Amino acid sequence: MNLPVDHPLSDGRTGDSILIRSYRGERTEKTPVWFMRQAGRSLPEYRDLRVGTKMLDACLDPELSSEITLQPVRRHGVDAGIFFSDIVVPIKLAGVDVDIVPGRGPVLGSPIRTAADVAALRPLLPEALAPVAAGVARTVAQLGSTPLIGFAGAPFTLAAYLVEGGPSKDHLRARTLMHADPQTWSALLGWAADVTGAFLRAQVLAGASAVQLFDSWVGSLSVADYETHVAPFSALAIAHVKDLGVPIVHFGVGTAELLPSMKAIGVDVMGVDDRIPLDDASRRIGTGTPVQGNINPALLAAPWPVLEAHVLDVLRRGEVAASHVLNLGHGVPPETDPGVLTRIVELTHAHAHATA
Amino acid sequence: MNLPVDHPLSDGRTGDSILIRSYRGERTEKTPVWFMRQAGRSLPEYRDLRVGTKMLDACLDPELSSEITLQPVRRHGVDAGIFFSDIVVPIKLAGVDVDIVPGRGPVLGSPIRTAADVAALRPLLPEALAPVAAGVARTVAQLGSTPLIGFAGAPFTLAAYLVEGGPSKDHLRARTLMHADPQTWSALLGWAADVTGAFLRAQVLAGASAVQLFDSWVGSLSVADYETHVAPFSALAIAHVKDLGVPIVHFGVGTAELLPSMKAIGVDVMGVDDRIPLDDASRRIGTGTPVQGNINPALLAAPWPVLEAHVLDVLRRGEVAASHVLNLGHGVPPETDPGVLTRIVELTHAHAHATA
Repeated sequence: MNLPVDHPLSDGRTGDSILIRSYRGERTEKTPVWFMRQAGRSLPEYRDLRVGTKMLDACLDPELSSEITLQPVRRHGVDAGIFFSDIVVPIKLAGVDVDIVPGRGPVLGSPIRTAADVAALRPLLPEALAPVAAGVARTVAQLGSTPLIGFAGAPFTLAAYLVEGGPSKDHLRARTLMHADPQTWSALLGWAADVTGAFLRAQVLAGASAVQLFDSWVGSLSVADYETHVAPFSALAIAHVKDLGVPIVHFGVGTAELLPSMKAIGVDVMGVDDRIPLDDASRRIGTGTPVQGNINPALLAAPWPVLEAHVLDVLRRGEVAASHVLNLGHGVPPETDPGVLTRIVELTHAHAHATA
Repeated sequence: MNLPVDHPLSDGRTGDSILIRSYRGERTEKTPVWFMRQAGRSLPEYRDLRVGTKMLDACLDPELSSEITLQPVRRHGVDAGIFFSDIVVPIKLAGVDVDIVPGRGPVLGSPIRTAADVAALRPLLPEALAPVAAGVARTVAQLGSTPLIGFAGAPFTLAAYLVEGGPSKDHLRARTLMHADPQTWSALLGWAADVTGAFLRAQVLAGASAVQLFDSWVGSLSVADYETHVAPFSALAIAHVKDLGVPIVHFGVGTAELLPSMKAIGVDVMGVDDRIPLDDASRRIGTGTPVQGNINPALLAAPWPVLEAHVLDVLRRGEVAASHVLNLGHGVPPETDPGVLTRIVELTHAHAHATA
C-alpha cells in the first residue's frame, strides 16, 4: 500500500516527513534513519530516569514513556520516535500475571499451556489502554512533524513467552504446542492477535503515524510452520489497524528464508536483519516494497572507518528497493556508545543516494 | 569423498555398518539413525551416573565418558555412539580456565578479547588428550561393529564462548572482534582450529570411525562473514583428520543460507537443522552429498501419530540425497521421554525406503 502524499488518510502533521514518504515507497531527498531500541538501555539519560522505576511501570507511566521515547530523537536527530514499551505490556493490561525481571526478561506467574489456560485468558478492554494512549498523545504533542512509530510484538513471539512462561533459547514448548494441540494453539494466537492488535490501534488513534510489528523469535520456525501456524494470526493482528491507513512495518530476526511469507501477511514495509545483504533481501521480498535495515549491530563497536564503510554499503544495497529506511539489523546493544549512533545519523543524512 | 567399502582406509571393524556406508554415500538396506545429544540429560541412567560429578570431570574420566556414551546405544539401539564430551574440553586441556556451570553453560575465568589474550593461549599438548583417547578406546572396545562418532566444536562456536567469556544470545562481542580486529580474530580462530582439530584427531586415532564438527552458533552470521572470517578456520580444523580417511560430518543451527558454504570447507556429510525441509536442503548442498537430519525436536513431545507422520516425511524427503542418516535437527531436549527416541529408531529401521 503506497498511499500518495495527498491521500485523505495521509497525516497532515507527519505525512511530508521523509520517514512516512519512504514507508510509502517514495525516494526522498535524504534516507531516513532510526534505530530499533534507540529508546532505552544505551542512553545515560534513560538509565538516570529509570532509577527506582520498574520496566513495566515505566511503560505505563505516560510521562516516563513519553520522555524516554523523546530522548533519542533529541540526542541523535533520528527521523522517527518509536514508542517506548515492551511486547508484554498489552498482555499485562489484559490481566496476565507477568513481570519483567532485570537481566532475565518477561516472566509469567504461570505459563499458558493448556486449553483451559487459554480459555481463562481475558480480552484487553479499551479502557485498560488509557496509559498507553496518554503516553503516545503526550509524545506526539512534542514531536511536531517527526513521526512516532507504534510498537507491538507479533502473536508468535508473544506466545513464545506465554507458553514457556519466560524467555527461552528455542521456544520449544511453543513450537510443540502448535503441532501437539493445534486447536489450543489457534485459540492462544487468536487471543494474542486481538490483544496486540488493540495495543497497536490505541497507539495509532492517539497519534502514531506508522506501526512496527516485531516477530522477534519467528526465525526459529520453518517456512511451512510459519505459514500454517503463525502468518494467519499476524495478519489478524494488523487487521486491527488496516483501516487507519498508516504504514505497517514488519520485522523479525533470522528471517532470510521467511521474508516473502512475512511480507505476504499484508505489510507495507519489511524490516531486514543483518544476516542477509539488503539488496538480496529486497529481491526476495520484491523490489517494489520499501525495506528497512540492516546495519550489523556487531559493527557499532568497531573502529569508525570499518563501521562507516559498512553503513555506506548498506545504503548502496538499499538502492535496489523502491525506498529504504536505514536502521540496524537488530536492536541497539545496551553497551553501545550513543555517539556512534549520532554519527550514523549524520552520515546517512549527508549521503546523497544514486537515484535522488 | 565417498570411499569404496574396500578402500584401504575403510575400517574393517565398522566399515560395513549402515552408518559408515551411508556416510560414504551408499544407500543401505535400512536408514541409519542416531540422535545429537543422545548421550546425556534425557536418560535417567545418565542422571544417576552424574550425581556428584561435575560435567568436565565426567568428560575427562574415561570410565564415565565411555559408560555415558554407551548408555543410549544400549537403550535405543541407535546405529552409532557419539563420544560424550563438551566443546570446551579441548580448550580446558589446553590450559584455559573454563568451567561448565549447571543451568548456564561454559564460563571462562576471563574472556579472550585482545591480541595479548590470544598470544597468551597455549597449544594443546598431545599428552593432555590421554583421558580422551582412553575414554574413546574403552568405548570402542565395547561397541563392537557399531561405529563411534568423534565430537568437536568448530572454531567460530568455540570463539563465541572464548570472546564472550560464556554463553551469549547473539555472540555480539565475537562478531565485533572479527571486524574490529581481524588479525586478532584470525589468530584466535587459528588457535581454536588447531586445538579442536587435535581433539578430533585423538578421537579417531583411538578408534572413532567418523567425526562430527559442530558449529552450533554459526547461524548468527551472514554468508559473507562466514566465508571470510570463519570457513577457512573450520577447514583448518578438519585438516587435522583429513589424512585419516574417516567421514567428516558438519552441523550448525539456523544454517539454511549457509549450507553450501559449510559443505565447501571439505566435509563429506552435511547435518541439517529442522528449519528447512530436508529435500530442499539436499538440493542446496548438492544431492550427491549424504545428509543427516532433521526431525523437529519440538515434535518429540507431540502425540505419536503427529511425530510418526513427521518422521516418515523426513525419511521421504531424505530420498532426494545420495544417502540419509536420520537424526534430529538439533540436540535431544533434556525433558524428552527416552521411550519416544527408541520408538523412532524402531520406526526408522522398519521403514523400507523407495530406492532400497
